[in-house]
Amino acid sequence: MQNPPLLPTINSPKDLVGLRAADLERLAGEIRETLCGLVEARSAHFASNLGVVELCLALHTAFDFSRDRLIWDTGHQIYPHKLITGRYDEFPTIRTKGGLMGYPNPAESDYDLFVTGHAGSSVSTALGLASGDQLLRDHENRWSVAVIGDGAFPSGVVYEALNNAKRNGKRLLVVLNDNRMSICHRVGGVADYLDRLRMNPIYSGLKEEVARVLSKVPLLGDPVERLLAQMKEAAKAGFHGGMLFEDLGMRYVGPIDGHNIALLRKYLRMAQRGDGPVLLHVVTEKGHGFRPAAEDPVTFHAPPVFQRDCDRVVAMAKSAGRTFTHVASDSIRDAMAANNRVTVLTAAMCQGNKLEKVRDEFPDRFFDTGICEAHAVAFAAGQAKVGMRPIVDIYSTFLQRSFDHIFQEVALQNLPVTFMLDRGGLSGPDGPTHHGVFDLAYLRVFPNMVVMAPGDASEVAPMLAIALEHPQPCAIRYPKAAADVVAGQRSPVRFGKAEVLREGPDGAILAGGALLGECLKAAEQLHLEEGLSLTVVNARFIKPLDTQTLLPIIEQSPFVVTVEEAAVAGGFGSAVLEACSDAGVSPGQFRRLGVGDHYVEHGEREELLADLGIDAAGIARVCRELSHAPAANLAG
Amino acid sequence: MQNPPLLPTINSPKDLVGLRAADLERLAGEIRETLCGLVEARSAHFASNLGVVELCLALHTAFDFSRDRLIWDTGHQIYPHKLITGRYDEFPTIRTKGGLMGYPNPAESDYDLFVTGHAGSSVSTALGLASGDQLLRDHENRWSVAVIGDGAFPSGVVYEALNNAKRNGKRLLVVLNDNRMSICHRVGGVADYLDRLRMNPIYSGLKEEVARVLSKVPLLGDPVERLLAQMKEAAKAGFHGGMLFEDLGMRYVGPIDGHNIALLRKYLRMAQRGDGPVLLHVVTEKGHGFRPAAEDPVTFHAPPVFQRDCDRVVAMAKSAGRTFTHVASDSIRDAMAANNRVTVLTAAMCQGNKLEKVRDEFPDRFFDTGICEAHAVAFAAGQAKVGMRPIVDIYSTFLQRSFDHIFQEVALQNLPVTFMLDRGGLSGPDGPTHHGVFDLAYLRVFPNMVVMAPGDASEVAPMLAIALEHPQPCAIRYPKAAADVVAGQRSPVRFGKAEVLREGPDGAILAGGALLGECLKAAEQLHLEEGLSLTVVNARFIKPLDTQTLLPIIEQSPFVVTVEEAAVAGGFGSAVLEACSDAGVSPGQFRRLGVGDHYVEHGEREELLADLGIDAAGIARVCRELSHAPAANLAG
Repeated sequence: MQNPPLLPTINSPKDLVGLRAADLERLAGEIRETLCGLVEARSAHFASNLGVVELCLALHTAFDFSRDRLIWDTGHQIYPHKLITGRYDEFPTIRTKGGLMGYPNPAESDYDLFVTGHAGSSVSTALGLASGDQLLRDHENRWSVAVIGDGAFPSGVVYEALNNAKRNGKRLLVVLNDNRMSICHRVGGVADYLDRLRMNPIYSGLKEEVARVLSKVPLLGDPVERLLAQMKEAAKAGFHGGMLFEDLGMRYVGPIDGHNIALLRKYLRMAQRGDGPVLLHVVTEKGHGFRPAAEDPVTFHAPPVFQRDCDRVVAMAKSAGRTFTHVASDSIRDAMAANNRVTVLTAAMCQGNKLEKVRDEFPDRFFDTGICEAHAVAFAAGQAKVGMRPIVDIYSTFLQRSFDHIFQEVALQNLPVTFMLDRGGLSGPDGPTHHGVFDLAYLRVFPNMVVMAPGDASEVAPMLAIALEHPQPCAIRYPKAAADVVAGQRSPVRFGKAEVLREGPDGAILAGGALLGECLKAAEQLHLEEGLSLTVVNARFIKPLDTQTLLPIIEQSPFVVTVEEAAVAGGFGSAVLEACSDAGVSPGQFRRLGVGDHYVEHGEREELLADLGIDAAGIARVCRELSHAPAANLAG
Repeated sequence: MQNPPLLPTINSPKDLVGLRAADLERLAGEIRETLCGLVEARSAHFASNLGVVELCLALHTAFDFSRDRLIWDTGHQIYPHKLITGRYDEFPTIRTKGGLMGYPNPAESDYDLFVTGHAGSSVSTALGLASGDQLLRDHENRWSVAVIGDGAFPSGVVYEALNNAKRNGKRLLVVLNDNRMSICHRVGGVADYLDRLRMNPIYSGLKEEVARVLSKVPLLGDPVERLLAQMKEAAKAGFHGGMLFEDLGMRYVGPIDGHNIALLRKYLRMAQRGDGPVLLHVVTEKGHGFRPAAEDPVTFHAPPVFQRDCDRVVAMAKSAGRTFTHVASDSIRDAMAANNRVTVLTAAMCQGNKLEKVRDEFPDRFFDTGICEAHAVAFAAGQAKVGMRPIVDIYSTFLQRSFDHIFQEVALQNLPVTFMLDRGGLSGPDGPTHHGVFDLAYLRVFPNMVVMAPGDASEVAPMLAIALEHPQPCAIRYPKAAADVVAGQRSPVRFGKAEVLREGPDGAILAGGALLGECLKAAEQLHLEEGLSLTVVNARFIKPLDTQTLLPIIEQSPFVVTVEEAAVAGGFGSAVLEACSDAGVSPGQFRRLGVGDHYVEHGEREELLADLGIDAAGIARVCRELSHAPAANLAG
């Protein structure tokens, strides 16, 4: 007789108290089953969640996170945690509009402390929590725990936090979840180091290895020299047991098997008995417990919907067709084929940015820095300085990490680095940490910077060509959207020039990017329904603005609507207002459509565009309203 | 008979070729003498330059930087380099308007590759140079050298670069200039580690130390256990010789004496014979060769003008009086005394932000993170989350390093962290890397953020009080300027409210910050000279804007001038334009004064304000022009 499922009975981690080891194992199985069930219904983060099931259960049984503090770095591995912190019933809604967020979310549960999504900050925030708790005497014995993957670990802010951990880290535990993966395979010195730690004889149990090291150093001679020689050999054999972390002032424990709940609990409890800061190195397998995911964790990081039969995938949904990302990747490929000075850099986004083919075709000119956006930009600046033409291909929201390097290393030096900002706009189900809506505002403030936003997918390649010829830094930002192309007679992309796609006397819509198609639809609809004849402009260049084209249109139009998939504060519409003011042009009615002064939740892009009033219907609604307004004013 | 001075004969590093060791020593003395002569005339970076004289000479004689690449991280230690790369004659102009920049400047010399000023990027840029040179076959044997201080070394981007150094670092040399100082005394795990390295028996020559380590471990028993125990003891004694760097994939050499030119050249040449990446650990003394500076390198980092008698300071100029920084520091001190939940964090800016007294009075609630701005902000977020009221006190321009953490860890979570942005505006002689002119634009884009800019020094404390009561993140930005207070009947600072200081029908000046005094002067001057009666508003809040006060004034004024010590792209004036547009208010003539779309060079703040037309005279000039313009228009 099968036992009734346990998971639905877990309403909070307090319900885990007293469960036997076998029950916890069973619960782990049920959590995995629930995760598999979810990705049969919807694309979601998967392999990373499979990997932390045991770790999650061990943490919630070794600590009491109603008073202790837990932060999941990067946050897409939060699903098991959500399932045992009172959100089992709502779990099927995850990543849908109005449903659970796919990342930690304090609005959902007190067990979620920070919305995380950008990697690497957890050690700093956990240290801040620990420091605050220490200062608030009644809190002082609470532990703060950061769980951080080895993919996030090379991020500079982690090192800054470790460097500062000694002072306030008495109750700090950093769990390094080492699954040997970023979203793609990890790279770099830290990765190599972790690999050596995993080869550690203590972990691998190879006592022979120790003997081998000793045998390499003759036993005679100066004992000082001998010790030094032995240490060198031992270090080569990965023997020095986390000295890198010890050097930074952490106590290092590990590596231990991250799928053994009993072992994990033992070490977690051991950590609590001493003083921190402690770094517990846990080895897990991304995709653990579902064979296809464990074998191909890159594909199964956030796979398309699939059907399974036991531990086999029998069908996987086809990907949704060509996107801006595909077009960008192809454009980069062609540019690299045409010019051997072109390089491309990404920050652990090889898969997300569809750069696998580029990587394979041009291995010498492809650079994946890992989650090190700051380094990537400064590194690109160095390449540009000697005459290369680097392309930095990073999600808009993650490029925020490089803001200061875009300023100092690129824009101030006026070096020809090209930024390709993928997911410029609404990223959909990932939500507020992943929407790339601040880029127009934060890039256009820097002198020397050129900022382009293609009106449709056909403009990505020509804009990249312009950028690679231009002697100054250029940015091209485009949305996470289908690679639609606007129909009709089009004019070629030229530096600093906008494109007028429709002309009419009744009002003007200025599109600052790939909502151009929606703008044209709105104009067409208003033409059919209201007989309005509107001008529609594809701005193409956010900076420099094509004032020669835009200003006369603004002067002649009874109303002007700017449309952007970006924050309107400081964005494209704001740039147009500035240009009008500088030229002494007083626009009539003027409306800036885009993202207002609030964060945008998760949901499908189409849903979010509709909510924000920047789909065709929303744009048409505003135009209709404005076209009626002057009469109303006169009547008043 | 004294030899004629050598330094004036050195027109380029090529003139160093063939100099004997004694000549190089003599040259070092002359460079020091020149540095001392400079600071008798003008405040300038001093102690750090004294510390790198020998290193600079050794580098330029071991490498040929007309083809090899040299980057000085942070850059304020560039003076000896400037003196031997063709800028001896111009040297007395350094840090004056139109003169040499106090940082590396490619516009001055091909020997300067990057304008540096923000710390830590040099390893990334050097790696980029090396990578580019490697791809460009005819460049491939050039070396790229980054010289970076131990103060900059904990910056996260350094770790990101080291983590990526292996792949492209075959010709990369990182010289770690370890003077045990940031501007203030350094802190953190990396600092402790470097201290241990300096205690390294190989460096200190204490063979006894090794014997001591060995003696701690009994010679009998399991050889495996014994080796592990010996290694642990050896590690504690700082014995493992740069393993932290070796772990990251660098070859570690050092530590060596950074004031011994012959030794430095030997090791630099040795580094060139092998393959990189190499980290050469050089120990120097900040202030070396001038006793008062070596004894008090904090004061002598960038001392006020002094007079000397041989190696003694006989008189030092008094500091220029109270500044906004003093007022901010006092306000922070008072807030901390009144509320024990208030903490203050800075990033190696204890001296610059005048926080020494605060540090000494509240050591538990004072946090200097070292040059780790990203960590500082995320750490503050953690403190705020548990109920503390952290104040992040960092220069405006350096806070750019935290842009993404202000977004994710603070603004998105809506945590009550208070940002005090010192040097918000023109930083004077430091130049473009230090001007803090982008803050209004980059802070106001984030939902939940409150942005204040005091009109004068009297408003700093009340704004801080508001920030510490407000449940959301707040920023207060103020200039590097005298703590002047605007005279007259003043209204108390209230959340979200502007202050109207003069009322008149002929036009309006809206001050977005501490140029308020200049605005009032301009209005007064126009009143006296032209009989114009202008309204002058102290906006106080950049976000939220007090539209209730501002919009009626804008509607009623024949012209409006906004004034800010900030980039006008996306800044205060732009926010006013947005507010007008949102409210359907059409301003008449509107002019945004501030920093245009260009970088501002170095010079005295007053000179720069005049150049930018945002001193009283410049503001008056624009107002006068606008007050005449309508008539001109009518005539046309």
